[in-house]
Amino acid sequence: MAKPAPSALDNVIALAKKRGFVFPAGEIYGGTRSAWDYGPLGTELKENIRRQWWRTFVQGREDMVGLDSSIILPKKVWEASGHVATFTDPLVECKSCHSRHREDHLIEEFEEKKGRAPEGGLAEVPCPKCGTRGEYTEPQQFSGLMKTYLGPVDSEAGLHYLRPETAQGIFVNFLNVVNAARRKPPFGIGQVGKAFRNEITPGNFIFRTREFEQMEIEFFTPPEEAGEWFDRWVEDCWNWFVDLGIDPANMRRFDVPEDKRAHYSDGTIDIEYRFGFQGSEWGELMGIANRTDFDLGSHTEASGTKMQYFDQASGERYTPYVIEPSFGLTRSMMAFLVDAYTEDEAPNTKGGVDRRTVLRLDPRLAPVKVAVLPLSKSEDLVPRAQQLASELRGMWNVEVDSSQAIGRRYRRQDEIGTPFCVTVDFETAEDQAVTVRERDTMAQERVALDQVAGYLAERLRGA
Amino acid sequence: MAKPAPSALDNVIALAKKRGFVFPAGEIYGGTRSAWDYGPLGTELKENIRRQWWRTFVQGREDMVGLDSSIILPKKVWEASGHVATFTDPLVECKSCHSRHREDHLIEEFEEKKGRAPEGGLAEVPCPKCGTRGEYTEPQQFSGLMKTYLGPVDSEAGLHYLRPETAQGIFVNFLNVVNAARRKPPFGIGQVGKAFRNEITPGNFIFRTREFEQMEIEFFTPPEEAGEWFDRWVEDCWNWFVDLGIDPANMRRFDVPEDKRAHYSDGTIDIEYRFGFQGSEWGELMGIANRTDFDLGSHTEASGTKMQYFDQASGERYTPYVIEPSFGLTRSMMAFLVDAYTEDEAPNTKGGVDRRTVLRLDPRLAPVKVAVLPLSKSEDLVPRAQQLASELRGMWNVEVDSSQAIGRRYRRQDEIGTPFCVTVDFETAEDQAVTVRERDTMAQERVALDQVAGYLAERLRGA
Repeated sequence: MAKPAPSALDNVIALAKKRGFVFPAGEIYGGTRSAWDYGPLGTELKENIRRQWWRTFVQGREDMVGLDSSIILPKKVWEASGHVATFTDPLVECKSCHSRHREDHLIEEFEEKKGRAPEGGLAEVPCPKCGTRGEYTEPQQFSGLMKTYLGPVDSEAGLHYLRPETAQGIFVNFLNVVNAARRKPPFGIGQVGKAFRNEITPGNFIFRTREFEQMEIEFFTPPEEAGEWFDRWVEDCWNWFVDLGIDPANMRRFDVPEDKRAHYSDGTIDIEYRFGFQGSEWGELMGIANRTDFDLGSHTEASGTKMQYFDQASGERYTPYVIEPSFGLTRSMMAFLVDAYTEDEAPNTKGGVDRRTVLRLDPRLAPVKVAVLPLSKSEDLVPRAQQLASELRGMWNVEVDSSQAIGRRYRRQDEIGTPFCVTVDFETAEDQAVTVRERDTMAQERVALDQVAGYLAERLRGA
Repeated sequence: MAKPAPSALDNVIALAKKRGFVFPAGEIYGGTRSAWDYGPLGTELKENIRRQWWRTFVQGREDMVGLDSSIILPKKVWEASGHVATFTDPLVECKSCHSRHREDHLIEEFEEKKGRAPEGGLAEVPCPKCGTRGEYTEPQQFSGLMKTYLGPVDSEAGLHYLRPETAQGIFVNFLNVVNAARRKPPFGIGQVGKAFRNEITPGNFIFRTREFEQMEIEFFTPPEEAGEWFDRWVEDCWNWFVDLGIDPANMRRFDVPEDKRAHYSDGTIDIEYRFGFQGSEWGELMGIANRTDFDLGSHTEASGTKMQYFDQASGERYTPYVIEPSFGLTRSMMAFLVDAYTEDEAPNTKGGVDRRTVLRLDPRLAPVKVAVLPLSKSEDLVPRAQQLASELRGMWNVEVDSSQAIGRRYRRQDEIGTPFCVTVDFETAEDQAVTVRERDTMAQERVALDQVAGYLAERLRGA
């Protein structure tokens, strides 16, 4: 697939809203950029990504197990992890209207608008809220953690934080998993779940939100094997995206320089995707970090519990190193959508061609696997289609669509990435067969009714 | 299965902790009763319940679609829903130590200890914290909503609440779904996700926690069909539990009297399960409520957006009624565990019998579907077992266990509910076959290596 045209992202966003992949959260109350709600198609797509990830990286590997830890954790966890102290963004405040902004975002926005960096730094940049130019305070620290209170009163004792990453829930359970699941390094723990960050400037659709979903792996290794596992995980992550259909030409590795890394990282490689944002078209899809023994060491110190592994064979006790592949689930969904979005031509019934939009999603990810279309609303076609759909529904997410012309219904299914359309027509009653149409090639094949399930199962393997 | 003995619950809790189904959240920092973390087996079991639910109630029905809305929603949503005003518990405060307690929980605890109700009401009940007897204030209101702040400062404008139910995220998206997914009542929207309630007295293992998971359906119907759909949903919900193995003798319907219903409900039936708690052995598993047009009406009033359905055929505009089947995911998991827990006898190698613990989970729910066991660590049995496991891993969650005696390993798999153990033995190299053992009957069968996958697929259908 070619590099997306500059407008591909806009087209995807428009399609996602129109077809109900994604809605702005709290829209009837004015909406918010903090979070998004996933509609019927978006929920299925997100779930399919999640499931493929879990199958590949957790169930599919003998050196991995899963975990699902709580979102709210006591303050002590976040003090030990370093988040309370360091999880802060430097903010500048407009001296005129007192709104606060991230310095790097102000500069990014300037670049997007002007196509060049501000030569005079912030002095040249107007406040996005009031327009005053270059009247900012020095940067100050601001906590990205969201807090809440448990218990009857808002007291210091009840102060808890919503997790800004799922990782810490894994670290604090390291010994539990080693003991209960009888594991020894090298092994990893995978988790999918929500995380929350009080971002100053959420934006770019579902790319930067305050509520988001992560798919994280903490892979525990003997310290001397950390480098080797780091490299293997970079490859495994890259290959996962490619296997599920992302064009490698739209991905790149970014070796994060030391001064830009998170406080726990001794080395980070980001995998970036060409989202096509205005200004900087690349965005971070995921990161693989070498967290060393930072986290287990910090929790050992803070809790007094020795977060180490005792190797009975060698008699050695050590603190494992951690390689962390951290995926954004919602960002991955956005990348899969952008990469799948294509426009081409399809023959119409008048002998000409129509433009069509196709989401060329891998069938394993497609939100609807099969659409069953009665050719017309008349006769017994609709009940026949419903009967077939209900048989297929035990295996896949299936839609029945009986409104409007067949060509228009094909377009609609192409647009949401449905790999197969099954048309029940006037001959079906006679020949006990239906027409199966494939999304990308638009090739049609007549398949006997009693063989449709098998025909589709063959082509939807792993979905 | 017989009614669980008084100690069944304790046995299940002990097993769940030992085998890593569930860990106390933040255990190394002293733990908390607010939430629990799900270990490798608990995560798989919970995920399997979730998936069966989604398959049955969302993908499996033509009148349902899915949604995944955000956890954090603006204050306005919760004002309109009535939660800010009414989502409060009456609390009494001990005049001596100023700790706060729910009056009904104080009385429950008294009953559990004494086996009878306190005749003099609260006057007879000692404070659980300081022991002072009967010195309580009148009940006061306390908000069960958890708040957090979005944006740079903790201001009223940034005040948001963590959802106490997933339902409201569905209501505020009613029109989005009707339009994008082209649906008309009767139809429903299903959602699975976390919810948060600032419970005063979390407890009873994973039964009452401040962070929990719900599986909710909001089913929109023409007002005149609400009663009929209510009855159908009560049946469908009941049958789901029975189909997945819960003994109906351990379930009962409870028609919630008017003064105990939630503020939005015109009728509620709880399905209760015999968890075997001390004192009152029954607990609420789920509820089906007739929410009438309360929610859509409230949001219409508060937002100014008409949350109604316009029926083009009849030209009629109306506010649909809502039937809400609301399942606790974590409570369901607890019920499946308690119901599956059994102890019986298994023959040992010495010709006698051993007691064994078996989780008779439906194979669709079992966290591990297949355990591959090399009979001994010697020879080439281990690599052979690993090879077979890696072939099966593409389809199911598979474990390899090579430590200790085979009988002990069978016991271990019985204890976590693994439906099939596949043993690779010394004859495998010669006859190209393995022994497959079924969990409940302990029957063993010799199956050719190249037919193992098919043999298991037949017996793990739908898993």
